[in-house]
Amino acid sequence: MTTEQLKEPITHPERSELELAAVLHALSDPVRLRIVAALAANDDERTCGSFELPVTKSTCTHHFKVLREAGVIRQRQEGTTRLNALRRDDLDARFPGLIETVLRAA
Amino acid sequence: MTTEQLKEPITHPERSELELAAVLHALSDPVRLRIVAALAANDDERTCGSFELPVTKSTCTHHFKVLREAGVIRQRQEGTTRLNALRRDDLDARFPGLIETVLRAA
Repeated sequence: MTTEQLKEPITHPERSELELAAVLHALSDPVRLRIVAALAANDDERTCGSFELPVTKSTCTHHFKVLREAGVIRQRQEGTTRLNALRRDDLDARFPGLIETVLRAA
Repeated sequence: MTTEQLKEPITHPERSELELAAVLHALSDPVRLRIVAALAANDDERTCGSFELPVTKSTCTHHFKVLREAGVIRQRQEGTTRLNALRRDDLDARFPGLIETVLRAA
């Protein structure tokens, strides 16, 4: 986590602002699908580093940003730690069955 | 349709080669979602020009290429006309419920 990232405000689209094309784009990457599957597997918030992904830290940070900006995950800062959670309720409300269907196909 | 396009061979991934991330990427654009919804609405093959999309002919051709390369549609050349059809059976076999869920959310 760089100083820049700590200073950058964490913004999220509202549920009503979620767009299908943006959500599909966020899901259209094998690493991001893996992140979403892991977040869906339990309700806990997780740090970027806890996923053991085959990518560099900055690529990982990028993937989380894409997921957050599309409204797929919610991020919050706790000290120097950024915690990530799936916005399951928002996604299920806007696009019923989508996350479940995608994860079953993954 | 340019002479180049007429000469270019039309290749399609096999059903077994379809990849979820590539299919989601192909669907992650409002114009392409519209094309897929229109193709899903009836079983007919349709030409690029029949969709009345708010994009130029070359952008339209690009969108169809992305859809074909991901395995979402099948294209075939008939004289100077390129016909497009949704690969519904292949998609349903590989990713059950995906197209239906996405189109319901669109």
